[in-house]
Amino acid sequence: MYLESIENINDIKKIDPECYPALAQEIRDFLIQKISVTGGHLGSNLGAVELTMALHLALDLPEDKIVWDVGHQAYTHKILTGRKEGFDTLRQYHGMSGFPKRKESCCDCFDTGHSSTSISAGLGLVMARDHKGEKRTIVSVIGDGSLTGGMAYEALNNASKLETNFIIILNDNNMSISENVGGVSKYLNNIRTAGGYLDLKEGIYNALLGSAKGNHMIRTIRRLKSSLKTLVIPGMFFEDMGITYLGPVDGHDVQAMVNVIHAAQRVEGPVLIHALTKKGKGYAPAEKHPARFHGTEPFDVETGKLLRQKAEPCYTDVFSTVICTLAEKQENLVAITAAMPDGTGLKRFRTQFPDRFYDVGIAEEHAVTFAAGLAAGGMKPVVAVYSSFLQRAYDQILHDVCLQNLPVVFAIDRAGLVGSDGETHQGIFDLSYLSGIPNMHVCAPKNKWELADMLQFAMDFDGPIAIRYPRGTAYAGLEEHREPIVLGKAEWIFRESGVAIFAVGSMVEEAVKIRELLKEQGVNVSLINARFVKPIDEETLLEAAKDHDLIVTLEENVACGGFGEKVLEVANAHGFQNRILPIALPDTYVEHGNVEVLKEHLGVDPEGIHRRIWEALNA
Amino acid sequence: MYLESIENINDIKKIDPECYPALAQEIRDFLIQKISVTGGHLGSNLGAVELTMALHLALDLPEDKIVWDVGHQAYTHKILTGRKEGFDTLRQYHGMSGFPKRKESCCDCFDTGHSSTSISAGLGLVMARDHKGEKRTIVSVIGDGSLTGGMAYEALNNASKLETNFIIILNDNNMSISENVGGVSKYLNNIRTAGGYLDLKEGIYNALLGSAKGNHMIRTIRRLKSSLKTLVIPGMFFEDMGITYLGPVDGHDVQAMVNVIHAAQRVEGPVLIHALTKKGKGYAPAEKHPARFHGTEPFDVETGKLLRQKAEPCYTDVFSTVICTLAEKQENLVAITAAMPDGTGLKRFRTQFPDRFYDVGIAEEHAVTFAAGLAAGGMKPVVAVYSSFLQRAYDQILHDVCLQNLPVVFAIDRAGLVGSDGETHQGIFDLSYLSGIPNMHVCAPKNKWELADMLQFAMDFDGPIAIRYPRGTAYAGLEEHREPIVLGKAEWIFRESGVAIFAVGSMVEEAVKIRELLKEQGVNVSLINARFVKPIDEETLLEAAKDHDLIVTLEENVACGGFGEKVLEVANAHGFQNRILPIALPDTYVEHGNVEVLKEHLGVDPEGIHRRIWEALNA
Repeated sequence: MYLESIENINDIKKIDPECYPALAQEIRDFLIQKISVTGGHLGSNLGAVELTMALHLALDLPEDKIVWDVGHQAYTHKILTGRKEGFDTLRQYHGMSGFPKRKESCCDCFDTGHSSTSISAGLGLVMARDHKGEKRTIVSVIGDGSLTGGMAYEALNNASKLETNFIIILNDNNMSISENVGGVSKYLNNIRTAGGYLDLKEGIYNALLGSAKGNHMIRTIRRLKSSLKTLVIPGMFFEDMGITYLGPVDGHDVQAMVNVIHAAQRVEGPVLIHALTKKGKGYAPAEKHPARFHGTEPFDVETGKLLRQKAEPCYTDVFSTVICTLAEKQENLVAITAAMPDGTGLKRFRTQFPDRFYDVGIAEEHAVTFAAGLAAGGMKPVVAVYSSFLQRAYDQILHDVCLQNLPVVFAIDRAGLVGSDGETHQGIFDLSYLSGIPNMHVCAPKNKWELADMLQFAMDFDGPIAIRYPRGTAYAGLEEHREPIVLGKAEWIFRESGVAIFAVGSMVEEAVKIRELLKEQGVNVSLINARFVKPIDEETLLEAAKDHDLIVTLEENVACGGFGEKVLEVANAHGFQNRILPIALPDTYVEHGNVEVLKEHLGVDPEGIHRRIWEALNA
Repeated sequence: MYLESIENINDIKKIDPECYPALAQEIRDFLIQKISVTGGHLGSNLGAVELTMALHLALDLPEDKIVWDVGHQAYTHKILTGRKEGFDTLRQYHGMSGFPKRKESCCDCFDTGHSSTSISAGLGLVMARDHKGEKRTIVSVIGDGSLTGGMAYEALNNASKLETNFIIILNDNNMSISENVGGVSKYLNNIRTAGGYLDLKEGIYNALLGSAKGNHMIRTIRRLKSSLKTLVIPGMFFEDMGITYLGPVDGHDVQAMVNVIHAAQRVEGPVLIHALTKKGKGYAPAEKHPARFHGTEPFDVETGKLLRQKAEPCYTDVFSTVICTLAEKQENLVAITAAMPDGTGLKRFRTQFPDRFYDVGIAEEHAVTFAAGLAAGGMKPVVAVYSSFLQRAYDQILHDVCLQNLPVVFAIDRAGLVGSDGETHQGIFDLSYLSGIPNMHVCAPKNKWELADMLQFAMDFDGPIAIRYPRGTAYAGLEEHREPIVLGKAEWIFRESGVAIFAVGSMVEEAVKIRELLKEQGVNVSLINARFVKPIDEETLLEAAKDHDLIVTLEENVACGGFGEKVLEVANAHGFQNRILPIALPDTYVEHGNVEVLKEHLGVDPEGIHRRIWEALNA
C-alpha cells in the first residue's frame, strides 16, 4: 500500500521513515511476483532494495546521478522512478529493459550491461560536473564481484586524484554471479568478520555524522587517517590508493545508509562506502541458491521451481558433459571461467577436476593471458566464456594468444542473438573480431554432436581455436551428417543445384527449414555447413560455384568482417559469375526481446530469409 | 673486458662479484653505443641493468623463467643470453627484435609488447609448472607504470590464492613512459620516501636473509605480517591482497637484489619484490629527459642530440597543434591519454590547458569509458591513442561509447605499419575492429591539412568518430585538394576513366605515385580519396563503377573487415560488373623493420601495387 503511492521520482520522500521496512517488503514482494512471471535478475535486485531506497532518499534525482555497475540491480531504481508498469513487459521486445537505459528515464544517466565500468563512467561525469561548475552528487554503485575487474581498479587509481566529491558505493554481497574469488574478496571478507577496529570506526563515523565537530573531522579526515595508520583501520587498501573509506555499514538499514551517504557527500574527494548486503535477501530460495536466481526464467513463487522445465539439452549442457569426458583422457586440459562456472557449464568440471579449474573473477583480460601462460607452459587451456564478454579480451587474444600461436581453446557460448538481456549481451560480433586476428581459427557447430566433435578436434589442434555456439536448445537434427572435422573444410549436407546455401553454425538449423520452403516452390537447394569461418573453405566454394546460380551465406553475426564478406572476397578473387546473397545481421545494436521475435524483426527468421532468397531468384 | 667473456647463458656466473659494478658499466656503455646507432629503447634498459644481472645470477636459466612486462627493458637480458651480436641489427627487418621473442632464445619464455600482461602470463606458467610437478622458479618483472593497467591487478588478485612460489619484481622507477600517475603510484612513492618503517623492514629483511632463524621467519611470515598490521608496514596494499611484500630494495645493487631474489624463492606463495631503480641510469641525458629517451632514434652519445633532425612535421605534430587551436574555440574539449602525453602529441595541450588534460596511466579501458562518462556529462572528449593500444578498449568502445552514441573523438596515431617496434605495435587492425561496431564512424586523412579538417569535422559531429593516421612525416602533397569534409563522402582527386583507385588515408600518397607509374604506361587512372571507411560512400562507388573497368582499393590494414571488403559488399549488392582488386595487408603479424622495407616485402609498396594493378589490367 506504500508502493501504490510511489508513482514518480522522489515520491519515496513522502513516506514516513518508520514505514521504510514496510515499503522495502512491498518492493520485494512486487519484484518476486513480477520476475516470477517474466523472468529476469532476481538475487541482485533483492539485495539492493534498501540501498536503492537510501540513494533515492539521500539524493536529489534527476539532478544527482547514479551510475549502476552491470545494471542488473537497478529494478528498485526503476520502481522508484515511475516505471512500475514496465515490469509487465520486462525484457520483452519493445518492453522495459532489464538494465538502465538513458532513453527510458532521465534518472538513468549511463547505459550498461557489462561489468566494472561504473567508476570510470562516474569519474567522467564528475569531471564534466566540475568543468561546468555544477553541484550535483555523482554516485557509482559497484558490486564486490565487479571489483575483480581490472578497469574498476584503473578507475580507482585515477579517482584518487580528485579534490571534489565522488561517491562510490561498494555493494558487497560477497558474491559475483557465483562465489567471489581472489585476494581483494578475501580482504573484504576480513573486514566483514573482524571486530577489533569497530570502536575506532564508530569514532570516525559518529564524528562524520555530527555537525560542527563533524565538519572539522571531515576537513581533516585525510590527515587523521594518515596518522591513524598505526592502528588497524578497515579499508586501508582503499585509503592507500587515496580513497576515503567509510564502513562497513549494513546495506539493508535504510536510515543508516541515508546517513552515511550524507556523510560521504561532505567529503571533498573520492569516498567509498562499504555496504554489506545479502544477495537474494528476503526470498528464501534465492538466498539459498544465489547463482540459480541471479538471472531466472519464470518460476513458481512458492517453491522457487522453474515453471517450464527444460526438455532438451542446450549447447551449454553439451559442452558441460563433453569437456569432462575430454578431461578424463587429456590430463593437461584445464578450464578457465571469468566468474561464470554455472553459466558456461563448468560447474560439473569444477566438481570433477577441482585442481584443473580456474575461476578468475570478472576478469576476462586476465583469463585470456593467464590461459596463454598456461599454454606456453604446456597445458591445454579451455576458456569458457560468453561471446559478448570475450570482447573485453580482444587485445589479449591478439597480443598474447595468437601472436605466439598458442593452443588455447575458446569455448564461446551465447554467440549470436541472446534475447532478453539485450544490446550489451548479444554475441553478434565475435566472428568479426576473431576472424581479423592472424593465426586464429574460428568454427561453429551445426548441432549438438558437432559441438562435441569440434571440441575433440580442438583438443588435437595445435593453435588458437574458437568454437562459437548459441544460447538455447542444442539442435538435434541432421544426426546422420557427422563427417569428421577437417581444418578449414565445410560439409555438404544436401547436394543439388540451383541455390547453394552456406550456413554458419546455428543457421544450419534455420537453413534446413528455409530449404524446405524453397523445395515446396520447386527450387533445388544445396545446403553446406560452413563449419569454419576461418580459414574459409575456398575449395568447396569453388565447387559450389560451378553448378549453382545463387550462393547464399547465412550467419548470426554482423556483416562487417563476417563470413559473407569472406565469401565475397573468394568470389571476387576467383571471378565467380554467380550471384551472391550474403545474409547477416544489420549494422545495429539489437535490443532485448525473445530471440524468435528479434529474428523476425531483423528479417533473419526462416520466413524472412526465404523471402529474400525468393526475391533474389526472381530479380 | 668483462662483457667480452659473456658469450652465452650463465656466463655471468663466472664473473667475480666484485666486478659486477664494472660489468654493469660495460653493459651500459654497450647499450648506449649500440642504441645511439640503431635507435631503440634506452631509458628502461639502462634502468634494468643490475636488476637483470641479479636475475641471471640468482636464477637457473633457461630452466627458470623470466616474464618481462612490455618487454622493452630486456636488452640486458638479451646480452646475457648470447645475443650481443644482434644489437647491430636491432629492430631491423630480419634482425633482432627489441622485445622478447620465443623464437630468438630459449630464455625468452613469453612474447610481449603491450603493458600489464606479465603477472597473468607468469601465473599461467606457475600453474603449468605445478601441474607438471616441475620445480622451476617463475619471475614476472613489471614496472610501476604497467601496474596502472587493470589486468595487472586482476592477476594480482588471482595470484593471492597461490600456495606455491611465484615472484613478482616491481621495477619501480616512478615513471611510465612519462611521469606516472594515480593513487597507487603515490602510494609507492610514499614508501620510497618514508623513513619510519625502515627498522622494522630491516628486521624482517635480515631475518629472511639469515638461514636458521630466516627459515623460521619465512614459514611464519604471513602470520607475522598479520599481527604486525598494527605497525606501519610498507607494502600493506599488496599484503592486503595476499601477496608477501619484500622491500623496498635498491634495484641498482646487484648483490642486494640477488639476496632478495633468493629470499623470495623461499616464500611459499606469491611474493612481490619492490625494487627501486632509475630510468636512464648512468647516462645523463636520459636521466634528465626520460620520456625523450624512452624510445629514441639514433643520437650523438656526447650531446644526446638526434643525428637526424626531423625536417617535416609528422601527423602527431599536426594533431598537437590543431587540437590546441580547436580547444581555444571549444571550451568543452578535453583530451585524454593513457600514459603517452609525448607520443600522442598532447604535451603542448597539457601545458596550455592543464585543467582539460587527463593522463590516466596505462589504462586504455578506463580511458575510453572515462571519456564516455565525460561525453555523457556534456563534454567533448578526445582520446589520443596509438592504434595497437586502443585494441585494449575494444569492448569499452562498443559497450560504453557507441551503444549510447556518445560524441567521443578517437585520434588514432600509429595506424598502419609502424616499423621497428614490430608485431605488437603495428596498427593494422583498427579499420576492422572499429568498423564492425554499430554507430561508429571511421575516417582517415590523406594529408596534413585533411587531418586538421577532420578534427574540426569531429568537433562538430554528434557521435563517436575515429580519425586514424600513420606514424611518420605528414603528407604535404595535394594541398589544392581540400573539399569540405562531409560525413560518408569520398573526394575525387583525379577524375579520368580506366582504373579507379579508392585509397584510404596514408595510401592516397602512395596512390599518387602508383598513378604516375600507370600514366607512364598510358593507363588512365582516377584517384579517389576514400576519407570515410564507415560509412562508406556508396554513391561515389556507383559513379566510379559507371566509367571504370577496374576498381582498386588500397588500405594499410588487414583485409578482413577492412575497406576492400566493404567495397566488395557494395559492388555485390549493386551487381557491379567491374573487376575489383582489393589491396590490403595480408592476414599475418608483421615483424619489425623499416616501414618501406616492410611494405616492399608485403607487396604494398608503390612498385608492388603497381605491378599487381598492371597484372590485373592484363589478365
